[in-house]
Amino acid sequence: MHQRNSGSFTLPGEAGYEDLTLELAERWGVDAIRDSDGTQLSDKILSSGYNIYSTICLIRSDNAWAKKNRDKLQQNYLMSNPVISSGNTATIDLLKGYFKEQFEINGNDDPKVWWQVFDRTTGTEVSKDDWEYNSDTGKVTIYNAKPWHRYTVNFLVYRIWEAISMYNHITNGWGSREHLMPLDPIYPETQAFILQYLEKWLREHPHTDVVRFTSLFYNFSWFWGEDPNLKFRYSDWGSYCFTAAPYAMKQFERKTGIRMTSEDFIDHGLYNNTHNIPSKKHRAWMDFINDFVVSFGRKCVDLVHKHGKKAYVFYDDHWIGMEPYHKRFADFRFDGIVKCVFNAFEARKCAGVEGVETHELRLHPYLFPTGLQGEPTFMEGGNPTNDAKRFWMNIRRALLRDPVQRIGLGGYLHMVEKFPDFIDYIASVAQEFRLIKSLHENGKPWTASCKIAVLTAWGSLRSWICSGHMHENPNLDLNHVYESLAGLPVDVTFISFDDIRRDGIPKDVKVIINCGRLDSAWSGGDHWKDPDVVTKITGWVAAGGGFIGIGEPSASKFSSQYFQLSHILGVEREIGLTVSKNKYSYQKENMHFIFADNKTTLDLGGEMDGIYAIDGETAVLEANNGHVQAAVRAFGKGRGVYLSGFRFNPQNTRMLYRAILWAAANEDEISCWITDNINTECTWFPHSRKLVIMNNGEENETVHVIKPSEKMAPITLKGYELQIIEI
Amino acid sequence: MHQRNSGSFTLPGEAGYEDLTLELAERWGVDAIRDSDGTQLSDKILSSGYNIYSTICLIRSDNAWAKKNRDKLQQNYLMSNPVISSGNTATIDLLKGYFKEQFEINGNDDPKVWWQVFDRTTGTEVSKDDWEYNSDTGKVTIYNAKPWHRYTVNFLVYRIWEAISMYNHITNGWGSREHLMPLDPIYPETQAFILQYLEKWLREHPHTDVVRFTSLFYNFSWFWGEDPNLKFRYSDWGSYCFTAAPYAMKQFERKTGIRMTSEDFIDHGLYNNTHNIPSKKHRAWMDFINDFVVSFGRKCVDLVHKHGKKAYVFYDDHWIGMEPYHKRFADFRFDGIVKCVFNAFEARKCAGVEGVETHELRLHPYLFPTGLQGEPTFMEGGNPTNDAKRFWMNIRRALLRDPVQRIGLGGYLHMVEKFPDFIDYIASVAQEFRLIKSLHENGKPWTASCKIAVLTAWGSLRSWICSGHMHENPNLDLNHVYESLAGLPVDVTFISFDDIRRDGIPKDVKVIINCGRLDSAWSGGDHWKDPDVVTKITGWVAAGGGFIGIGEPSASKFSSQYFQLSHILGVEREIGLTVSKNKYSYQKENMHFIFADNKTTLDLGGEMDGIYAIDGETAVLEANNGHVQAAVRAFGKGRGVYLSGFRFNPQNTRMLYRAILWAAANEDEISCWITDNINTECTWFPHSRKLVIMNNGEENETVHVIKPSEKMAPITLKGYELQIIEI
Repeated sequence: MHQRNSGSFTLPGEAGYEDLTLELAERWGVDAIRDSDGTQLSDKILSSGYNIYSTICLIRSDNAWAKKNRDKLQQNYLMSNPVISSGNTATIDLLKGYFKEQFEINGNDDPKVWWQVFDRTTGTEVSKDDWEYNSDTGKVTIYNAKPWHRYTVNFLVYRIWEAISMYNHITNGWGSREHLMPLDPIYPETQAFILQYLEKWLREHPHTDVVRFTSLFYNFSWFWGEDPNLKFRYSDWGSYCFTAAPYAMKQFERKTGIRMTSEDFIDHGLYNNTHNIPSKKHRAWMDFINDFVVSFGRKCVDLVHKHGKKAYVFYDDHWIGMEPYHKRFADFRFDGIVKCVFNAFEARKCAGVEGVETHELRLHPYLFPTGLQGEPTFMEGGNPTNDAKRFWMNIRRALLRDPVQRIGLGGYLHMVEKFPDFIDYIASVAQEFRLIKSLHENGKPWTASCKIAVLTAWGSLRSWICSGHMHENPNLDLNHVYESLAGLPVDVTFISFDDIRRDGIPKDVKVIINCGRLDSAWSGGDHWKDPDVVTKITGWVAAGGGFIGIGEPSASKFSSQYFQLSHILGVEREIGLTVSKNKYSYQKENMHFIFADNKTTLDLGGEMDGIYAIDGETAVLEANNGHVQAAVRAFGKGRGVYLSGFRFNPQNTRMLYRAILWAAANEDEISCWITDNINTECTWFPHSRKLVIMNNGEENETVHVIKPSEKMAPITLKGYELQIIEI
Repeated sequence: MHQRNSGSFTLPGEAGYEDLTLELAERWGVDAIRDSDGTQLSDKILSSGYNIYSTICLIRSDNAWAKKNRDKLQQNYLMSNPVISSGNTATIDLLKGYFKEQFEINGNDDPKVWWQVFDRTTGTEVSKDDWEYNSDTGKVTIYNAKPWHRYTVNFLVYRIWEAISMYNHITNGWGSREHLMPLDPIYPETQAFILQYLEKWLREHPHTDVVRFTSLFYNFSWFWGEDPNLKFRYSDWGSYCFTAAPYAMKQFERKTGIRMTSEDFIDHGLYNNTHNIPSKKHRAWMDFINDFVVSFGRKCVDLVHKHGKKAYVFYDDHWIGMEPYHKRFADFRFDGIVKCVFNAFEARKCAGVEGVETHELRLHPYLFPTGLQGEPTFMEGGNPTNDAKRFWMNIRRALLRDPVQRIGLGGYLHMVEKFPDFIDYIASVAQEFRLIKSLHENGKPWTASCKIAVLTAWGSLRSWICSGHMHENPNLDLNHVYESLAGLPVDVTFISFDDIRRDGIPKDVKVIINCGRLDSAWSGGDHWKDPDVVTKITGWVAAGGGFIGIGEPSASKFSSQYFQLSHILGVEREIGLTVSKNKYSYQKENMHFIFADNKTTLDLGGEMDGIYAIDGETAVLEANNGHVQAAVRAFGKGRGVYLSGFRFNPQNTRMLYRAILWAAANEDEISCWITDNINTECTWFPHSRKLVIMNNGEENETVHVIKPSEKMAPITLKGYELQIIEI
């Protein structure tokens, strides 16, 4: 068995801890050392012979320049807290409830031009003659208000503390250290400054081999609050809120003819969040920002290359406008992309990016005293080794399906000193990673012959993710579906409703998955009112396609049906409007291919209630308190599967795989390269004839692998063990 | 203590069981004997000296005439099962899935005029040139169909088996007995026939004292299916589906200028069900039918009076168009109204009808082998005494609040022969009923000084009911609220959104309750988009009013809020569109007036999930898995209360009473005329100074009654016992 003992690992070095840095570099088989936000690398480290990654965040790189050019700070729109008027005058304290160290009202750009006041009781804008902004008090007064109406103000703010730096500062207790402010590169002056700064920086960092942009220009949206019980008011990993600025809006109008208003960003307080269906106007704005980020980003990358260094980019934080799943991404000419990951779907999200040579995972836990949700990690009460084990078990499955080139850590290396078991565990992770990576060198692993397409309003632009990490929105069924899919032997693609309208269903796709709540971007909302979409899918299923719907698939309050594909799914949902309609009284089908490996009660999470079978042609596989949880139906030559929710766990992962095979009328392949123990999974590399069997849990497991037409001898795996068998 | 030993009780007599009839008449203190559908009274019974009630159902009274006048049978619209076209022609078998013994396609009235075919994929009507009806096959063929579109046909049917008679026939196994057909009295010919029939009938029933109409002309909607697993396809106690007929529609157009279409009745398959918000057009149709039913009904009642008899009407079955809560109801000049009841709210619904002298309850169980849901009653496996006890315990509380004048039974008397304990129990019920009735003779019972108004889209027209019995839709929170309210010491009124628009909130109302799901008639749907409604309620609460919202109160997907009164309720609901908005992190308030009597875990039924506090001014009283279940908030001088659902039980009933007092800022009255044991309730009759204490459960209970400023000595009540104390 071929193993490599070093390489492909990036270590966060730390000045002042040179010995530790070099010791662990040796121990973990490191080939690159990086700095982090808040750490430096000393000369001893820089000249130690390792490749050197240097992080740079261009938009918070020079606070002195920022302070001199406050009108070039990044901006965004906020909606004030609503105020219910009690008389004919209403006064709104704009920043009430927002963290005033993050936001400062922009009074430079004329509020009467750029702001809007809304009567949210009527849903209409208040005339600009009927309100005044007082820059001394930070308040808007509405005259001729109507008693007991609800008013809000859409207003512009500068961000006076860059969000990630603010988070790192507060999390690590940096005290009086200066608050870094984010520059907006949309202005020619800022661009000139940044390029000049970068040129100088590149000259001053001769040891740097890889410039690691952390990341580009615009952060994901993160509004902080002043109330300790509402510390974060809004967070969306995929939102473009932080790109708003009058200058950009004017440029956008010149380029596209489209005039943006504050309400286009505020969107009734929904802020065009990623979970909702994007409007055409919003997509046009995203496209404009993406175009700008690529064109200016390319200038930065070219500069890096001119200095003989490589340019990597971090696929988090200031990634807005970067869009690694847009075809334009290759135009950046990045050499590498780095993604922080907790879960399998995030690993696939990184691995699947095209137009870049190196994909690197930054593993968790981050070497910080606390984790992303404030829980202890490298401090008393924390158990970073267990955390690391849990995350690695998630990620390992994905890496067997689609490889990345590198892994690494981030944060403050001295944190690990008191955790020797963590040091040991990371050494074994590094070894296992190199082994897995090597398996892919002789060709791709086996997959079942049923490629699936996940259908959402975003399509491929949001491949492998809803928005943010799993733990941030643990109730999003689709993230759980992605987590299961990420380690299954199936090829996965991502399509949008626009794709279907334009091209129909891709020729090689056998099964479509649609999963989400009514009117969400994931389910599709109004797209399901389009007969073109509904009939193309219906005809495709009738001809033999498979459709798996989860939650509220194809849901739209439209016409005579709620699930627009109820004829395929076999179920409908009672949402309180068809109470007088009696529901078909079914007998559960106790034995079905899809459920054949289920051992325990079906748990699909916070399931949709009120699901019922439309008639006797639907086979109900499971129900809870009269609410159907799982059902299947034939439609023409094709098949439909319905699940009322989804949660990632071994049983559901296996069930989803079976559902895919069944929907594709491809049940035979269940006897190919699969284990008979759902706590374990296997991957077959046909070119090298290597079979990987892994235990995803902490208990010992005995398992038979089923090769095509043969059950292999039993194998026993220790907890978390991975074995490779050559056949 | 004054008691009456006889009277106020109606017994169903049965020819062939004369001795049993007269024995039970004596035993139960009966003063009136009735017949039932399927039974006759013999001469011996008729001449026994009791008042005689004779049931008559005019629209199924003469099947010979019906057979000769099949074009005068009642009609309704049905929507066919949908068909997904696979090519350019689609054929729809109209009656597929419907019970063909109930419905016959009406080919007499031109289908091209009265029917419509819909493409439900696009939501548009198919041109009349593109389809044909074949009366030989009962099928519609659609030409120029679009592949993979969903088509349905709205078509007219005659009803060839009257629904209640059909139910009785099948339930009691009447075999080859002729199927009775329902006549439509809308035609002058039918009216003439009915009046002539009634005149003859009256002459031929000299012993009859009370003509008991069972009931008038149009039954509630009840579509039966042919699949034994979908025996009933649609049932709505309050729907006007069964009033459709081309003749009526033409009359309606002449009278109102409004042209009805088939889709006005079909309503996308929703059939204008009572749970949904009625359109203006539908309300106009209801008004037209009501006007007709009252005017022709009055002719029938006048005829009865002319013959020196009284006219009672049954407030179920063919009650459509009767509308006892419409002011026009008094115009019938009925002498009595009879309602079948399982629950307290139904007793209140009967007792609250104005414009009629006698209110009579028909108790359950009905003397049938099986109950309404097919469960055994008077047969092996049944326990009719337990059933009767359960229903009486429900009803008794209501009768202490608002009296009726009579009770009775229905069905086949011989059924009781094998159930001597049932005979005993009914004797005690009759006694207790007479006692309760007598208590009201010296004046009304005490109520707390906080009248409440239940706000729905229907308002007073649907007082005390959603639609149908509690067990038919056990998940309707509002029915459970009604059940609790029906026995509480509070005055209750019912208002609509139109009432609020026209008159504001009634002066004497202290608390409004709004309870239901999004877009239902109970919550109010689009009415909440009307600023007039929202601001009138908001201003009224600010001035001191109380608002209790349950489920999805004030919900509408409109503007920036989901609960349009979130500023009063203090909560909002996450429906998947504000996933990126972080939610306020509250601490539960552990001691609150509203929860002071709660002993066990709060159970509000199938609660709304995703409820969250809008900010720190909301006090969260209870939550489940992070979903707020109960919250309160001050707004101006008023108060808001939110509950995520409601189920009738002793704890919730007490909690609702406390919520009402709290919302009205009337907490002091919690110390007036209340028991300290939630399994018991008391009623204080101030004029006669009588205090009624009752045990609502089967266990013995010890209880202190709290009089204003004094806790009384303990009292022990046996299971179900009712005691009266004179003070």
